[in-house]
Amino acid sequence: MRESITFHAIGTVHNSIDQPLRPDAFREVESQIVLDPDLIAGLTGLESGQRIMILFHFNRAGDYELLQHPRGDKTRPKRGVFALRSPRRPNGIGVTVVDLLTVESNILTVRGLDAINGTPVLDIKLEER
Amino acid sequence: MRESITFHAIGTVHNSIDQPLRPDAFREVESQIVLDPDLIAGLTGLESGQRIMILFHFNRAGDYELLQHPRGDKTRPKRGVFALRSPRRPNGIGVTVVDLLTVESNILTVRGLDAINGTPVLDIKLEER
Repeated sequence: MRESITFHAIGTVHNSIDQPLRPDAFREVESQIVLDPDLIAGLTGLESGQRIMILFHFNRAGDYELLQHPRGDKTRPKRGVFALRSPRRPNGIGVTVVDLLTVESNILTVRGLDAINGTPVLDIKLEER
Repeated sequence: MRESITFHAIGTVHNSIDQPLRPDAFREVESQIVLDPDLIAGLTGLESGQRIMILFHFNRAGDYELLQHPRGDKTRPKRGVFALRSPRRPNGIGVTVVDLLTVESNILTVRGLDAINGTPVLDIKLEER
């Protein structure tokens, strides 16, 4: 059942955040997503002002635990990892909807991405169809 | 830049859909997600009535194209794959928020998952924190 599936990063997050913050603290952070230049055509139709979904790899998260305290808060009872957004999960994929500020060539500037500097990006999806 | 990242399916979708449908046609489809039994503890805190996010692998999608007609409709101009939800994307990861109907042991019954029978599941996240 635990079939292995390999993906390749399509780009990388660049921002000023070098250590994980609480999710809320990322709300105003601006990040640049530098896309592999070979994929630029895939951005056609993305425009400033849209809300886009970013999928990324929690590449610096520790090993997962099936039961964790929500947000690491030991005063709260442990919950299952699938009922949490913790980065320490069996497949460390983060999903966040952000504001797209600008698209210039292969660089997207976004606000609200809760990923640290150097995070590999797996996918970008326009939220609305 | 195209760093490779390997994940392992946490479970599999079981439903009556053996061929891709238009996304809307999945709205009322019920599916069962059969989770690897070793991961059952990770479901703690998931309950009937919640909205949960499912990440899955488009394992039967064809090769990606950077420019595609929205929903394959040739009367509409092509757009970039990152401005679309097409399964034919560089990293074939689907993200859908579904209704959780029941959780019984390692089996989640959900409504609205736009994935065909046999689709590998990568992650489950509770939508609300």
